[in-house]
Amino acid sequence: MREAIALQQATCTGIDLRKGKNMPSLKGRHFITEQEWTKDEIDLALELSTELKERKKRGEITDWLKNQTVFMIFFEQSTRTRNSMGCGITQLGGNSHDLTPDKMQLTHGETAKDTAIVLSRMGHAIACRNCFYNVGNKYLRDLAEYSTIPVLSLQDDIYHPMQVMADLMTIQEKFGKNLKGLKVTISWAYAESHAKPLSVPQSQILLFTRYGMDVTVAAPPEFPLMPDIVEQAKDNAEENGGSLRFSDNMDDGFKGAQVVIPKNWGGFAGLSEWVDDDNHKLRMKANLLKHKDWICDARRMGLAAKDVKYMHALPADRGKEVTDEVIDDDKHSIIYDEAENRLHTAKAIMALTMGGR
Amino acid sequence: MREAIALQQATCTGIDLRKGKNMPSLKGRHFITEQEWTKDEIDLALELSTELKERKKRGEITDWLKNQTVFMIFFEQSTRTRNSMGCGITQLGGNSHDLTPDKMQLTHGETAKDTAIVLSRMGHAIACRNCFYNVGNKYLRDLAEYSTIPVLSLQDDIYHPMQVMADLMTIQEKFGKNLKGLKVTISWAYAESHAKPLSVPQSQILLFTRYGMDVTVAAPPEFPLMPDIVEQAKDNAEENGGSLRFSDNMDDGFKGAQVVIPKNWGGFAGLSEWVDDDNHKLRMKANLLKHKDWICDARRMGLAAKDVKYMHALPADRGKEVTDEVIDDDKHSIIYDEAENRLHTAKAIMALTMGGR
Amino acid sequence: MREAIALQQATCTGIDLRKGKNMPSLKGRHFITEQEWTKDEIDLALELSTELKERKKRGEITDWLKNQTVFMIFFEQSTRTRNSMGCGITQLGGNSHDLTPDKMQLTHGETAKDTAIVLSRMGHAIACRNCFYNVGNKYLRDLAEYSTIPVLSLQDDIYHPMQVMADLMTIQEKFGKNLKGLKVTISWAYAESHAKPLSVPQSQILLFTRYGMDVTVAAPPEFPLMPDIVEQAKDNAEENGGSLRFSDNMDDGFKGAQVVIPKNWGGFAGLSEWVDDDNHKLRMKANLLKHKDWICDARRMGLAAKDVKYMHALPADRGKEVTDEVIDDDKHSIIYDEAENRLHTAKAIMALTMGGR
Repeated sequence: MREAIALQQATCTGIDLRKGKNMPSLKGRHFITEQEWTKDEIDLALELSTELKERKKRGEITDWLKNQTVFMIFFEQSTRTRNSMGCGITQLGGNSHDLTPDKMQLTHGETAKDTAIVLSRMGHAIACRNCFYNVGNKYLRDLAEYSTIPVLSLQDDIYHPMQVMADLMTIQEKFGKNLKGLKVTISWAYAESHAKPLSVPQSQILLFTRYGMDVTVAAPPEFPLMPDIVEQAKDNAEENGGSLRFSDNMDDGFKGAQVVIPKNWGGFAGLSEWVDDDNHKLRMKANLLKHKDWICDARRMGLAAKDVKYMHALPADRGKEVTDEVIDDDKHSIIYDEAENRLHTAKAIMALTMGGR
Repeated sequence: MREAIALQQATCTGIDLRKGKNMPSLKGRHFITEQEWTKDEIDLALELSTELKERKKRGEITDWLKNQTVFMIFFEQSTRTRNSMGCGITQLGGNSHDLTPDKMQLTHGETAKDTAIVLSRMGHAIACRNCFYNVGNKYLRDLAEYSTIPVLSLQDDIYHPMQVMADLMTIQEKFGKNLKGLKVTISWAYAESHAKPLSVPQSQILLFTRYGMDVTVAAPPEFPLMPDIVEQAKDNAEENGGSLRFSDNMDDGFKGAQVVIPKNWGGFAGLSEWVDDDNHKLRMKANLLKHKDWICDARRMGLAAKDVKYMHALPADRGKEVTDEVIDDDKHSIIYDEAENRLHTAKAIMALTMGGR
Repeated sequence: MREAIALQQATCTGIDLRKGKNMPSLKGRHFITEQEWTKDEIDLALELSTELKERKKRGEITDWLKNQTVFMIFFEQSTRTRNSMGCGITQLGGNSHDLTPDKMQLTHGETAKDTAIVLSRMGHAIACRNCFYNVGNKYLRDLAEYSTIPVLSLQDDIYHPMQVMADLMTIQEKFGKNLKGLKVTISWAYAESHAKPLSVPQSQILLFTRYGMDVTVAAPPEFPLMPDIVEQAKDNAEENGGSLRFSDNMDDGFKGAQVVIPKNWGGFAGLSEWVDDDNHKLRMKANLLKHKDWICDARRMGLAAKDVKYMHALPADRGKEVTDEVIDDDKHSIIYDEAENRLHTAKAIMALTMGGR
């Protein structure tokens, strides 16, 4: 135990991690869902995120992962995730190696097992985004089974732990550390731009309830979240004094909310990801088109609390999910702080998990 | 003012930047066209380029941008630009992150504004190549409007400031610092290989006239440069004792030239970039085919001054723009020095603009 | 001579390279085939590989190529090679720049000469994989002719020197430094996954015979190795007390072997790489299908020596080249050690050849 802390302190030079006392070292730990990290561990990561944010502002060099490599395997596009990881590891003195599937030999008989073991022998973490429905999380779990270095999720079909860490950090910056009773609404919104997985709202309801927030999920009945995730989130709420309620009305969801996070899940292109046959696909498209009015606009923002904050993981489908007026209103919209915190939280997660023996 | 210089000196350890005295700091400055930099600023950058070239030769470590990130957004292919930036930032202790459009979410509703703000929160410079006609420069200006870190052009539809800095450095190495009266001919040449934008000759006539050179542009009447660039270059010549003349005859253009830079603009593939309809495209192709004889060969080199230098930004369309005999003749061809100086000038621009608060 | 060693020692701080005494410096040397390196040079590289492996295990920083760049030009897919080079140069304090042909201007008239000279002016090594039949090695030789920095092969149509260095290191780890008389069988195996070039078995027979091993090549008559490579390997055997024999029977090849390396060459997709016309292609496919029974399975492993080691450069075509039972049997299969050693040997080759003036 003591050595674990010593190691953490030795690696993160100058950081006082005493709060982490009596915690096992996080070196080598996977980060596939924040649900598997204790609240103490998440708090430690958030504290380190804030520390790293301040150090960056002061222009300090933080060579904590000097010459170390994080592999990044992206099965889907990414801007914020790629950049937060890439800049993050650079700022920590290491490097990222981009392994897009076309560069790898995934079509040449390469299994997750072989990939995990070989990368473990060479570098220091495997970060992966794989959002294919019913595949992504399983792939990450396969990697983790065989990897001796941390496997870090960059989003899968169920969870997006990196995003939700940045969300929580941003909410704490605006509302303080004690979030008990904060009214947060996660709303479905209409979009056409591309497939948006369930992972963001799911990780949000899981984590926010653990911090005692009063969470509302507003969505049309045709776009439910996964039942076992909902059950887990209810348990989280019960254990931590938060609450979780559902509404099928966007206006209702917005009423009195202090934070609103309206975002599509299950969009046009995304249909192919979680349906089995073409008939189903057509039904889903018809379902989607019924809800073009699920947009976050000024009128709906008016239903929320006076100082309501608008959040979005970006990229937003402007004019569909949200009006320009709302997303560009700096008084309420905190999307850029949210995006920036992707950097600091990613750095914290890497600094805590990487670099072990 | 004093602090600005102090900061520059602190960052570029060991470099005597006293010449930069009384200049505002270049930290955070955009580099979209060299026209927006004063001659003092350009001279400072060239001086630093030479300094960096010597330090590299001596194998010195120049960790001036340690752990900093330059994002590179390429909408078109690149060899020299990509490598000069990538090696350059590596030699300065930082890293480049390649954001090809397919890796970004540009098709997912990502605006230049969102890209600029988010990248500004994470890294230290945004470098971008976007040569789409009537789009590229606007895109860079959009980035610059919202970016709080320097936006560095890697070529657009109007300017190629990085190239022309290397060109000027190379010319100074061969002819000395005082270039007043030097006869430089920028000539159109026939090519089939790919689209070549107007940006290289345009940045050249803008910059060379500011250094008092006597610039000739030789081109068939069907391939003019942009009128407002030509007007600006004439103003530059007038202010700085240079001159600018035009010819529609390649032989005439070459006569007596001390430097020749024959290169295509508006080639086959490029037609699609700056025409509106297919008829226009066919007319342009017909125009192009009329001028297959615009090639830089030994006979034409014989019309120039005895020690004429041949330059090309590379890649050259061998056998079309230039004969192998000319481009491979080390007595006149200085293409590799020109290419190498892309590295040193890129490093200087990054070292001067990046790393501010 | 003395200075050469001094330089090597200065660069590889702390490494005792006394064994390298009386050897010319390897700085700037190309590594296109291990055949062109003396045994002393190869031994030095292996010794350094072991040193680097231990240092990595101890978590030591080895900043020997600080801020240096290795360019990587991949004309084909890669996992282990890309990662071993990328992680390797990162661990040595430098950086790799990925130049996939689509990012370069190879379609825009860029010649190997221009590429080599320009990259030499900017970075510190050019690493390249080009396996196109009758093209790859020539391309590397073209690069080497004009490059003033080391050209490192990442596999071509004839040789794969990086792979075979890792193979030799792995064999020495299991059987000791003195490999005289070790029975090694390199066997053709059936595969469908993708084109597998001749380079791996060819580099293996060339190098293993120099270390006095008794090498057997088992292959169907339709899949011969290149005659001049075979001749060279025979000469190597004669000079070094090894032997080289051929068999057209997989069972026969396996009998008594202490190391087996069964792997396809000339697979389905690969046919297009080394045939001239479609008729030939069809004949080759028919030839291939005749030999579906060339699989490494438990029965065949039973024919080999009791402690036989199974090796494969990965990725293996599971169920075709080898059964899961064999490749996943840790008692015999040393594929992950072999893969890991790609890292350490690549680092050694870079540390020895790069960084000169």
